[in-house]
Amino acid sequence: MTDPRERFQMPPFYCPIEPALHPEVDMIEKRAIAWIDKVGIYDDEAQRSRVIGTNSAEFFSRFAPGGIDDNVLLAAQWVYWGFAFDDVRCDRGPLSDRPDRFVQVAGRVQRVLEAPHSVDTAEDPYLGALHDIGLTMRELATPTQVRRFIDAHRAWLHAVAWQIGNQARNEMPGLDDYITMRLGSCGGFPTMALLEIGNGAEVPDSEMDHPTVRAATEAALLTAGLDNDLHSYRRELQQQHTDQNIINVLIRHEGHDLQRALLEAVGLRDRIMQLYLRLHAQLLPQASDALRTYLTCLGRGIRGNIDWALRVPRYTDSTPPEASAPEAQHRRPTCTDTPSDDTAGPPSAVPSIAWWWDRVQHHR
Amino acid sequence: MTDPRERFQMPPFYCPIEPALHPEVDMIEKRAIAWIDKVGIYDDEAQRSRVIGTNSAEFFSRFAPGGIDDNVLLAAQWVYWGFAFDDVRCDRGPLSDRPDRFVQVAGRVQRVLEAPHSVDTAEDPYLGALHDIGLTMRELATPTQVRRFIDAHRAWLHAVAWQIGNQARNEMPGLDDYITMRLGSCGGFPTMALLEIGNGAEVPDSEMDHPTVRAATEAALLTAGLDNDLHSYRRELQQQHTDQNIINVLIRHEGHDLQRALLEAVGLRDRIMQLYLRLHAQLLPQASDALRTYLTCLGRGIRGNIDWALRVPRYTDSTPPEASAPEAQHRRPTCTDTPSDDTAGPPSAVPSIAWWWDRVQHHR
Repeated sequence: MTDPRERFQMPPFYCPIEPALHPEVDMIEKRAIAWIDKVGIYDDEAQRSRVIGTNSAEFFSRFAPGGIDDNVLLAAQWVYWGFAFDDVRCDRGPLSDRPDRFVQVAGRVQRVLEAPHSVDTAEDPYLGALHDIGLTMRELATPTQVRRFIDAHRAWLHAVAWQIGNQARNEMPGLDDYITMRLGSCGGFPTMALLEIGNGAEVPDSEMDHPTVRAATEAALLTAGLDNDLHSYRRELQQQHTDQNIINVLIRHEGHDLQRALLEAVGLRDRIMQLYLRLHAQLLPQASDALRTYLTCLGRGIRGNIDWALRVPRYTDSTPPEASAPEAQHRRPTCTDTPSDDTAGPPSAVPSIAWWWDRVQHHR
Repeated sequence: MTDPRERFQMPPFYCPIEPALHPEVDMIEKRAIAWIDKVGIYDDEAQRSRVIGTNSAEFFSRFAPGGIDDNVLLAAQWVYWGFAFDDVRCDRGPLSDRPDRFVQVAGRVQRVLEAPHSVDTAEDPYLGALHDIGLTMRELATPTQVRRFIDAHRAWLHAVAWQIGNQARNEMPGLDDYITMRLGSCGGFPTMALLEIGNGAEVPDSEMDHPTVRAATEAALLTAGLDNDLHSYRRELQQQHTDQNIINVLIRHEGHDLQRALLEAVGLRDRIMQLYLRLHAQLLPQASDALRTYLTCLGRGIRGNIDWALRVPRYTDSTPPEASAPEAQHRRPTCTDTPSDDTAGPPSAVPSIAWWWDRVQHHR
């Protein structure tokens, strides 16, 4: 018998949204690489290749295909920065099981974004690069957009600290805790906060702070976050280590085998995706132009994240040599318009997101 | 020779702001105590007394002396909750040197505030009580005010995690790190976010997100945070342990003796207080009514915090029996209208807050 993990195959992603890409993606990437070289967020050539290989310019060009060139560039810079920071300071660096150290780094990182001109950044290129992003952001974005990004950034770091704390205890969180944590740790809050900056269209607070818009935002970014769990799971199988992700949570805590866990994970993800689509449709008729663009780009983000993940070395590169070319074919699932689970209403096992479904208006 | 710590005496607080108190403070306290008993944020009678003895109703009634009764009550409930949570989960509880555990608790706490009806709160009265506060807040406050409080709450927990991380390594942070951390860990962000809720007056985003308003907010709450450092330092002397606070930071990292550290700390605090007053005066003429109320209440908060601290058992109770009545007299410093240090411009040793001074408009 073969190990079922060897037969692991990704089902197609339920995503009835067309792909899109900013027409200036190549120019944006070129300028972003020049910035990476300027701020120096790598130690050596291999790390430089890895940072550039995150294809972050392509990534965000899919999120905001109609965005303003300079603003999409700024957003892409942050995405490159986020991946680089993640590699050296979060997931895989020496802090990955040192929550005490990580929260200190996170506190400094957050402050350098919040407070311009405040830190001697020559010592730490990651701080310097983020400081530079903050300065440019104050030029290109409105104070409200900047504040939203700052708050979203803190939410991300807060959740990454939680993840690192679990890692330090070698503990796999339960499902509801995991979903709460993943909502923040996937980086979706700052990424989605960059949408209105990329598009140069500030959403009024009365709309952005509305619980239904918040629910749509959370649903969209968690969909993408769970998709990334599936992408990275396969890579982790190859690397023989088990990080905190939706599949491992379901295997560990629900006693599922891999196949069942995969089904459940995709089912949950599909229900969340459907909720986003529903809230999107519900909000559109009354939405301001800026909100309409924002909500639509949330969906572009889900689709863009899938399309990006299928090409990016981060998920497709196989470290072990046994990954053969034909197998690589199997690792390219496509999208489908049919959800694997179309149950209405909230998943009972995840109370921390149940309120999203309360935002759905039912016609009588 | 006597230990200089035994002669430690607090200088008067520079605070040219008149005291004020909500006229319904007694009724608010009575209702708050009924709520404390309902949600049960204590394990035994001693802990109940400690929670009630934080005088949080009086505390917030000084911050928002003209606030709406129900809203000031809600704010007071959160302050009681915050002190109770701090005692059992942050500063002094079993998590006080377990950053890995604290970030998990903080993640759950934050989510129960963000996401209504999401957690089985019967298991943990602290979660249940905060959930209850969130529900009431959604009734009494606007979505934007609620969102601001939620983001401020996360900033607090984020900084407390940093503090606990330092504690775990038994490390006294450097001055700039300490100020950045203290800005968040003192709880000023959520407390000040309750001002506009208490007053029932939403500050427009174009004003609240303006860097000058942000600088005034940070300066005011850090003034109060440093005042609390001075209050608690004396208690810590009595308890013979040295927590992270401004005095210990200056002693440890600048090589100052206690008297010099006290002078420096008070000087820094007074410069920050003067900056708040300056930005307040600068902003007032153009401010909306809601912003004017908010900015004025920041100052009421500084003064109210001093007046509250002089009476509250948290700072005035002396655990060791040697604290005699005459000595207690010395522990009641008053306010003065003259700053101990009136140097203009930012303190060079604290780059993370230097940008506040950039917000001062100089007349030509």
